[in-house]
Amino acid sequence: MKIAIISITTQGKNISDKIYEQLIKDPTILHIQQYHKNVKQAIKETFNTYDCIIAIMASGIIIRSIAPYVNSKLTDPAVLLIDDNANYTISLLSGHMGGANNLTHKISQLIGSTSVITTSTDVNQKQGIDEIARKYYFNLENPENIKYINRALVDNRKPTLQIPTKYTYLIDDELKDSYEIKQDNTNDTLIATIDNHSVILTPQNLVMGIGARRDIAQSKVEHAINTACQILEIPPQRIDEFATVDIKQNEEGIIKTVENLGKQIQIVPRDTIETYKNEQCSKSDFVMKQFGIKGVCEPTSLIINGENSELIFKKTAYDGVTIAVSKK
Amino acid sequence: MKIAIISITTQGKNISDKIYEQLIKDPTILHIQQYHKNVKQAIKETFNTYDCIIAIMASGIIIRSIAPYVNSKLTDPAVLLIDDNANYTISLLSGHMGGANNLTHKISQLIGSTSVITTSTDVNQKQGIDEIARKYYFNLENPENIKYINRALVDNRKPTLQIPTKYTYLIDDELKDSYEIKQDNTNDTLIATIDNHSVILTPQNLVMGIGARRDIAQSKVEHAINTACQILEIPPQRIDEFATVDIKQNEEGIIKTVENLGKQIQIVPRDTIETYKNEQCSKSDFVMKQFGIKGVCEPTSLIINGENSELIFKKTAYDGVTIAVSKK
Repeated sequence: MKIAIISITTQGKNISDKIYEQLIKDPTILHIQQYHKNVKQAIKETFNTYDCIIAIMASGIIIRSIAPYVNSKLTDPAVLLIDDNANYTISLLSGHMGGANNLTHKISQLIGSTSVITTSTDVNQKQGIDEIARKYYFNLENPENIKYINRALVDNRKPTLQIPTKYTYLIDDELKDSYEIKQDNTNDTLIATIDNHSVILTPQNLVMGIGARRDIAQSKVEHAINTACQILEIPPQRIDEFATVDIKQNEEGIIKTVENLGKQIQIVPRDTIETYKNEQCSKSDFVMKQFGIKGVCEPTSLIINGENSELIFKKTAYDGVTIAVSKK
Repeated sequence: MKIAIISITTQGKNISDKIYEQLIKDPTILHIQQYHKNVKQAIKETFNTYDCIIAIMASGIIIRSIAPYVNSKLTDPAVLLIDDNANYTISLLSGHMGGANNLTHKISQLIGSTSVITTSTDVNQKQGIDEIARKYYFNLENPENIKYINRALVDNRKPTLQIPTKYTYLIDDELKDSYEIKQDNTNDTLIATIDNHSVILTPQNLVMGIGARRDIAQSKVEHAINTACQILEIPPQRIDEFATVDIKQNEEGIIKTVENLGKQIQIVPRDTIETYKNEQCSKSDFVMKQFGIKGVCEPTSLIINGENSELIFKKTAYDGVTIAVSKK
């Protein structure tokens, strides 16, 4: 996720700095850029290329600035608004698909503000179908029908939700409170239906790349995978494939852990990584020195996930294990 | 003030009804209209003709709906946002000149929500120069300089504020905390200055029309004037002129009260009212029966204030006295 933080006043800049210092450490934030003073220019530069804009200013300024660019809830970035005293963090635009509501809670925790969320489903403690799609990395096949599902939820009606058995782990009390759940073993998609209107959710492919020190303990690999998934707010079962480099293909700690999750580990030849070029990948001098490649977890994740895949979790080290996750 | 309330869900409609029932009794609200479901159409109909839009829905919906229409903080209506559970009332657009911040507090009190204000001056407990203009009915001569004054306030600098002695009553602790105040007897305008940038505030003309039962007690007239001014959030001295009909020109209760305020009472001939046509005026069957005219307080206020004046306080009866106020 790419985030832009825009401030105007000196107080606002201090809040911007505080958020920057915290988010730069967050593995799910791949790029973060601070802007100060020229709001119109900052919006012009970021609205269509960033995933989230955090505006620290009066609501009128940010609304007037984004007005020429707003297009669709499926493509617009998340826009968050924070007042100059950090009293409130308000989810302004793209609450569900853009993840603004979720980010609002995250930022509020960082700066000690109150989260202000206005989407009806959230206000009524229901799981909007677009929020489920965002949270668990599904594509929405027919977004024009979202409104039927979400309005039914707000009116305390229960749409049916057909869930493939492989995604049984999605079912929790909140989901059961929102939907009439039907388990299903015939296909790979989630289908929400009310009054003959359906929304179909098809899974994005998630690949976790794993690098590790020699003779890594299984418990350390497990810990690393679980921690990364916790930060991504998904269960480890949601990861579709795992990947590592051929040098690590006999590491018992990695092999066993992936096996225990009932998943496959894909092996990428070192040669492939050597010639692989992708701007998303960071460089490790240590790995370069040892193995002549830039890294393991990021390139293997992206190579296995194929063209147009993008990192959602940048390389992060946990006690001898490095983890990266991409989606496509 | 003309207000439109727009809701989408059943819960939202209930909140809309609650606000409607309260505001319809408010003398400063001259027209109020409820809209349900079709937000785009409601915005199209009201954005350029209403003073305030209260949207009960998700922020994304109202922001996407107003985006094509937003133009300038000096002319756009106040836009307020309330979530479906009435947890928060958020001042979204035209916080100062449009009065959105002030209305946000008012609506929050009516429905028991939390007010969310994001304008830097308010957040920092300073009186923005545009907020002073709105509150006390001044026109802003050079709005392009507002930013210099308000940014200085936010940076804890004190702009000078030149106040004519006739407006001494504006000076309170909050104003003194925001500005370096200079009293002045040479002109009729307020002038705020910082770093050679000035904002000039010229007063709108406020005329209060008064009707009353025969032999009305002075205390009752005083009570009526004070109550109306309290609701308008201005001191009685801010009223520039008073008006009544010739039939009442010898009513001691009215004459003495206006004299005590150091103001003039303007007398309007009954004939003038008889032939006066203005859609803003309500009709009183009682007055029509007794004197052959539609009313006293509204037409006399508008006639004395002249062409293009508009009511800011509709006819309201207080124990034998009727009050209306217009601005121009």
